[in-house]
Amino acid sequence: MTSKKVVELFYDVVSPYSWLGFEVMCRYRHVWNIELKLRPAFLGGIMQGSGNKPPGMVPNKFMYMTNDLHRLAGYFNVPLQFPADPFEAMFKKGSLSAMRFVAAVQEREKGGDKQVEQVSRELWRRIWSEDKDITEPASLSEAGMKAGLSDSEIKEALALYNSKEIKEKLKSATKEALDYGAFGFPMIVCHVNGKPEMFFGSDRFELMAHCIGEKWLGPQPHSAVKL
Amino acid sequence: MTSKKVVELFYDVVSPYSWLGFEVMCRYRHVWNIELKLRPAFLGGIMQGSGNKPPGMVPNKFMYMTNDLHRLAGYFNVPLQFPADPFEAMFKKGSLSAMRFVAAVQEREKGGDKQVEQVSRELWRRIWSEDKDITEPASLSEAGMKAGLSDSEIKEALALYNSKEIKEKLKSATKEALDYGAFGFPMIVCHVNGKPEMFFGSDRFELMAHCIGEKWLGPQPHSAVKL
Repeated sequence: MTSKKVVELFYDVVSPYSWLGFEVMCRYRHVWNIELKLRPAFLGGIMQGSGNKPPGMVPNKFMYMTNDLHRLAGYFNVPLQFPADPFEAMFKKGSLSAMRFVAAVQEREKGGDKQVEQVSRELWRRIWSEDKDITEPASLSEAGMKAGLSDSEIKEALALYNSKEIKEKLKSATKEALDYGAFGFPMIVCHVNGKPEMFFGSDRFELMAHCIGEKWLGPQPHSAVKL
Repeated sequence: MTSKKVVELFYDVVSPYSWLGFEVMCRYRHVWNIELKLRPAFLGGIMQGSGNKPPGMVPNKFMYMTNDLHRLAGYFNVPLQFPADPFEAMFKKGSLSAMRFVAAVQEREKGGDKQVEQVSRELWRRIWSEDKDITEPASLSEAGMKAGLSDSEIKEALALYNSKEIKEKLKSATKEALDYGAFGFPMIVCHVNGKPEMFFGSDRFELMAHCIGEKWLGPQPHSAVKL
């Protein structure tokens, strides 16, 4: 018997705020009494399904987000940097193959989610830190290697990620997020007394802690614990 | 000589997140070493000037905001409740006369901003707690009374609020916010070492504290101090 609260994190590596939320939740899974479920999904499908528009389309909002993300990256200790052409990276190239690759890694992985976590992180590092491609098989393969997957594991994921099964898996996770009411990512769903409590974005952790009966120690809880 | 950091709070009583930000900043002006400047402005002008759209237009976002505001109101201890017809209250009736009234009260008030603070709060209470009108002179007058203004002070503000001078004053505050890069409210501008640091919304207080060298004690700092 466990009293761990289930917390689902819906994310897409195309979304920089998702990276911040992902790192915070990966830190807190070892601090709070929660069972974190990584839910890779497709942000493009969320925007289309909810009728939402990317926030960067309003010039003042885009300028603010650039500065906001820069400040938050420092405060959260996540090495986030804007690519030279964020619109090209986010909207022209997008993340559909990258997220299918993550879904394939998740499909294959047994007994945990270390590989999904690491592959997601390496894909974020490529697009949101090193301004590298995340659409080509060679890019996915490189991210897999950095994440510590074996050659055969990468080969299997690459053989799988364009299959009907994986396309459906990603579509179904995206639909689940929409059904919870998502209109963007990250979307964190905390299951509290049988009721889903949704938190959008990477700025509700203090409120989330309050709702699940835990303590918020800032975005870097381990340094807080050490102090 | 004072080392108080100047913090400008741009707001409009039509905006529920602004109410949360307003109450938090009014609490922290007595906790942090800051000089809080209340900057009533017109959100309609910000949306038009920045090309932004109200977030409530996306159904999933509207549903989320309803729940998010309800949770935050409890956590922040602000008696916020949705009006029966929020679209009617926010978009059809709007806040232009209310914000001109606040600007007129500010224009008249000497030696402090207690009246501006109280009148703003009473207007928020009307629209975002008691589902009452904020467009008619009688409504503004009632808010003024609750805020502790004398009959002659209310009369003067009502004689002033439709004047060219006050219209220009509100327009100019709105333009200043746009020039800082606003695309919505609340927008909080912290002047740190001669540089304006902007914070949009009511979910960046922890980061703001970090940026101005203060400590975040949660949305109810006085109970935190008492503990």
